[in-house]
Amino acid sequence: MPIVELHVLEGYDSTEKRRLGEALTDAVRFVVPAAPDAITVMIHELPADQYFRGRSPRSPAPARPDPARFVRDYLAAMERRDLDAAKAMLGDDFTMQFPGAAPMTQLEELIAWSKPRYNFVTKTYDRFDAMQSDGAAALVYCFGTLSGEWLDGTPFSGIRFIDRFEIEGGKITRQDVWNDMAEVKANA
Amino acid sequence: MPIVELHVLEGYDSTEKRRLGEALTDAVRFVVPAAPDAITVMIHELPADQYFRGRSPRSPAPARPDPARFVRDYLAAMERRDLDAAKAMLGDDFTMQFPGAAPMTQLEELIAWSKPRYNFVTKTYDRFDAMQSDGAAALVYCFGTLSGEWLDGTPFSGIRFIDRFEIEGGKITRQDVWNDMAEVKANA
Amino acid sequence: MPIVELHVLEGYDSTEKRRLGEALTDAVRFVVPAAPDAITVMIHELPADQYFRGRSPRSPAPARPDPARFVRDYLAAMERRDLDAAKAMLGDDFTMQFPGAAPMTQLEELIAWSKPRYNFVTKTYDRFDAMQSDGAAALVYCFGTLSGEWLDGTPFSGIRFIDRFEIEGGKITRQDVWNDMAEVKANA
Amino acid sequence: MPIVELHVLEGYDSTEKRRLGEALTDAVRFVVPAAPDAITVMIHELPADQYFRGRSPRSPAPARPDPARFVRDYLAAMERRDLDAAKAMLGDDFTMQFPGAAPMTQLEELIAWSKPRYNFVTKTYDRFDAMQSDGAAALVYCFGTLSGEWLDGTPFSGIRFIDRFEIEGGKITRQDVWNDMAEVKANA
Amino acid sequence: MPIVELHVLEGYDSTEKRRLGEALTDAVRFVVPAAPDAITVMIHELPADQYFRGRSPRSPAPARPDPARFVRDYLAAMERRDLDAAKAMLGDDFTMQFPGAAPMTQLEELIAWSKPRYNFVTKTYDRFDAMQSDGAAALVYCFGTLSGEWLDGTPFSGIRFIDRFEIEGGKITRQDVWNDMAEVKANA
Amino acid sequence: MPIVELHVLEGYDSTEKRRLGEALTDAVRFVVPAAPDAITVMIHELPADQYFRGRSPRSPAPARPDPARFVRDYLAAMERRDLDAAKAMLGDDFTMQFPGAAPMTQLEELIAWSKPRYNFVTKTYDRFDAMQSDGAAALVYCFGTLSGEWLDGTPFSGIRFIDRFEIEGGKITRQDVWNDMAEVKANA
Repeated sequence: MPIVELHVLEGYDSTEKRRLGEALTDAVRFVVPAAPDAITVMIHELPADQYFRGRSPRSPAPARPDPARFVRDYLAAMERRDLDAAKAMLGDDFTMQFPGAAPMTQLEELIAWSKPRYNFVTKTYDRFDAMQSDGAAALVYCFGTLSGEWLDGTPFSGIRFIDRFEIEGGKITRQDVWNDMAEVKANA
Repeated sequence: MPIVELHVLEGYDSTEKRRLGEALTDAVRFVVPAAPDAITVMIHELPADQYFRGRSPRSPAPARPDPARFVRDYLAAMERRDLDAAKAMLGDDFTMQFPGAAPMTQLEELIAWSKPRYNFVTKTYDRFDAMQSDGAAALVYCFGTLSGEWLDGTPFSGIRFIDRFEIEGGKITRQDVWNDMAEVKANA
Repeated sequence: MPIVELHVLEGYDSTEKRRLGEALTDAVRFVVPAAPDAITVMIHELPADQYFRGRSPRSPAPARPDPARFVRDYLAAMERRDLDAAKAMLGDDFTMQFPGAAPMTQLEELIAWSKPRYNFVTKTYDRFDAMQSDGAAALVYCFGTLSGEWLDGTPFSGIRFIDRFEIEGGKITRQDVWNDMAEVKANA
Repeated sequence: MPIVELHVLEGYDSTEKRRLGEALTDAVRFVVPAAPDAITVMIHELPADQYFRGRSPRSPAPARPDPARFVRDYLAAMERRDLDAAKAMLGDDFTMQFPGAAPMTQLEELIAWSKPRYNFVTKTYDRFDAMQSDGAAALVYCFGTLSGEWLDGTPFSGIRFIDRFEIEGGKITRQDVWNDMAEVKANA
Repeated sequence: MPIVELHVLEGYDSTEKRRLGEALTDAVRFVVPAAPDAITVMIHELPADQYFRGRSPRSPAPARPDPARFVRDYLAAMERRDLDAAKAMLGDDFTMQFPGAAPMTQLEELIAWSKPRYNFVTKTYDRFDAMQSDGAAALVYCFGTLSGEWLDGTPFSGIRFIDRFEIEGGKITRQDVWNDMAEVKANA
Repeated sequence: MPIVELHVLEGYDSTEKRRLGEALTDAVRFVVPAAPDAITVMIHELPADQYFRGRSPRSPAPARPDPARFVRDYLAAMERRDLDAAKAMLGDDFTMQFPGAAPMTQLEELIAWSKPRYNFVTKTYDRFDAMQSDGAAALVYCFGTLSGEWLDGTPFSGIRFIDRFEIEGGKITRQDVWNDMAEVKANA
């Protein structure tokens, strides 16, 4: 039943408009228990010469990246140990928090820290949940299970994990990680 | 710069309209990198006799609860061991997943499971992040630190945790928990 | 899928707004094959001091009567031979056309004309169809069956009829009648 | 004074938009006694990628045929005895009701029925009135006069008739006919 | 033909809304040569809890005074030599420019300057023209004729004058005066 | 905070839309003391086949000339004594009023009148203020200083002037002039 109209400057592509349509629908459903089919979103584009703020036309800013896809790309780069690609996605003030570790800021620290823990690890994702925070950052949560190989060569799998990311200005600025590795080891 | 207009049936209070205003603003910012001040939301209310779908007027559905507040209330009830209050907030198909445990569906199971683990635990929250999923469920993530007392009476504190909740039909249907308890115990 | 917004001066009651909602829905369905549920109508009322044409506020004109109801009332008045009530519903230039008769303008003419044809007649309605013409007149079609008594006292029933009315300025200005009376008589 | 805005998916041509503009104007005039010039209709088209229902874009459905033109074409096909063309315009459950006849469903029945009545008949139309019913069917009323030739070769003309059609799913599903043929014959 | 919609926070009275309606109509006519009757303005009021900028509700600012009326009041106060009332309407940086005088900032200067010129003067107004400048100031032009008494007691009248005012922050900040006094004196 | 939406037929160029955007912004600021940046104007263009008044599509009228530019061009033509160009910009009922002169209607009159007054004069403009009057005319005020040469060859400069113009139907219909020439001469 609710109807959302978005007036926005021309310049967003179909994928970006689709993301807007979905986010606006979800924003309404967050409060109003309407069936999805009962929520309509209309995006009205305005050419730059038909929109004025303070008497002046404005230009559209390029869309933000899809934060879930951005995080997925980062995690893939890390998994294949493409540190250059991964670093390019990190903000200057990036920090990461892993279970049982002090906060780290450099990917090399992370690799050094993980070396005495396991030979390698890969992630299987159950789900990515992304949202805009009430501030500047977009948030991405992803969770699933870890599999890999312990230092002694024995394999492991099915270890629950969850990651939380903050993305701001098109860069990852924070990563928090929780998982059941210690739990599993303790029970092993 | 973007302007959102929401047309909705009369019947939501100022708090609910505020939640709509915030969620719609955040939905736009999720894609368009406009400064918050440059995003305007207008909510247009329609009396029931001025809105028709399929030739018929419609009634507004009561607003969904604020999921972050709902989860906070649930966690508070659990912390003070008010199981009746907590149970009333759970859906019929509620399941919870704690580190190192099989999935549980009854709060009594959870209490039995925790008994050989610690005397008590309290949560300090860094942050609640809530969003509508792309489906019917609202999602709440909250994280922070645990403090409490081990079985031997020694206190603990500062143990990182994160909880993920799904709320559907005004009830919690799923809880997933991760924390560093095992990590801390292993290092103790 | 289509959405209609009507901006109109404050001053119409719920029944009148319902009629607007239905007529606008039907107008869309006349062209667009959307399921009724997919057509939304929103009526936005404007207080008189928030609407200007040519720099001046305007007042809302009282709603037109529901033409189907108006015709139904007229036909009921005629059936109970309440000529005063019926006459009050006719425009100054009212004309009526009955099968095999010259055009008539006075109800007394009609009564005189019907006298040598039947003792009385009552109408059973299958349906009223009302619409706005492309001009000033509203149109009402109603059809069903006649029953009554011939001059010789024998009853009749089930004789098909159709009436067409034009309503303008709140008065009936034209009535056209077709029926199977002659057909039935010829076959009798 | 009233202003109508229609939001509709891109894909209707100028003629279809004109039909929408006229039908919406008439819908307003059906209730509000505004001068035609005081009624404004604005059609806002939305590209398919700017409209979402339930998070998903939708496609526009092809416009319904103009029912008055459709009926006119049907009547022209019948008049020139192009039964194939006429049949193609009839729905599977088509029925027709002529004065003094049992309901018929096949055009051949109609032709057989008319054979002992007249040699041929042509229609002169005073007017077509078309509207959407409150259900799925569009309605067309047309009336005027019949001329033609009786079985004995004598011509006739000026015989009043009225037809009522229902069109649904792009096909004629019902035709009801009234006329003064029996009246004229009785008086002849 | 053009239609203007203004969305504004609730809180302006009918006179202020009328001023908005007129100013918006004139703004359109400044560019589009539509007949006044063909320009519609609709003002949509929003309760404070239905409007958000940057996630926050906003309050409406009190309307600016009608600048033409404000200037008229100032000129009336000056004419009756109510300097206190007049001074209260002047901004801190008020300057005035009269023919043949250096710029003045104090009303007392003006009175001293006029003393050797005439005994008194009154203004008859042909017209006030008021507009918003492209900056913060509103502008008022008024012109007409002066009448009064020269120092020698002879009366004068019909001397053309024009005043230009700038109003900012609810105060007059600048006055420029031109008139034909010297012309008239030279010709006397 | 206020938002203006203008619905107008397609056919105005970017400069004309810019003029509309500025005039509408200023119209709002004339009453509402919002910071310029807080006033948004959106121009929604409608193709001719999507706008109907009284069931009929309409065509856009060509934009009015920018009156300030029009007056500037007229004054430039006069200054370079291009009387043909200047005359082409005058309405049939053009009148002008100069200090100490009877009303004039012909440019030749003006030239004859100025001949015994000065050899030539040029204008330096401080400012043009243009607005739509409440009637059909656009108004332009311009003021600044005159420089030139007296009849005896001595130069003058810095003489204050103000002109007021009315423009209607694309022609100048009235000019009123005030200046300090007599004041300056009297003091010389």
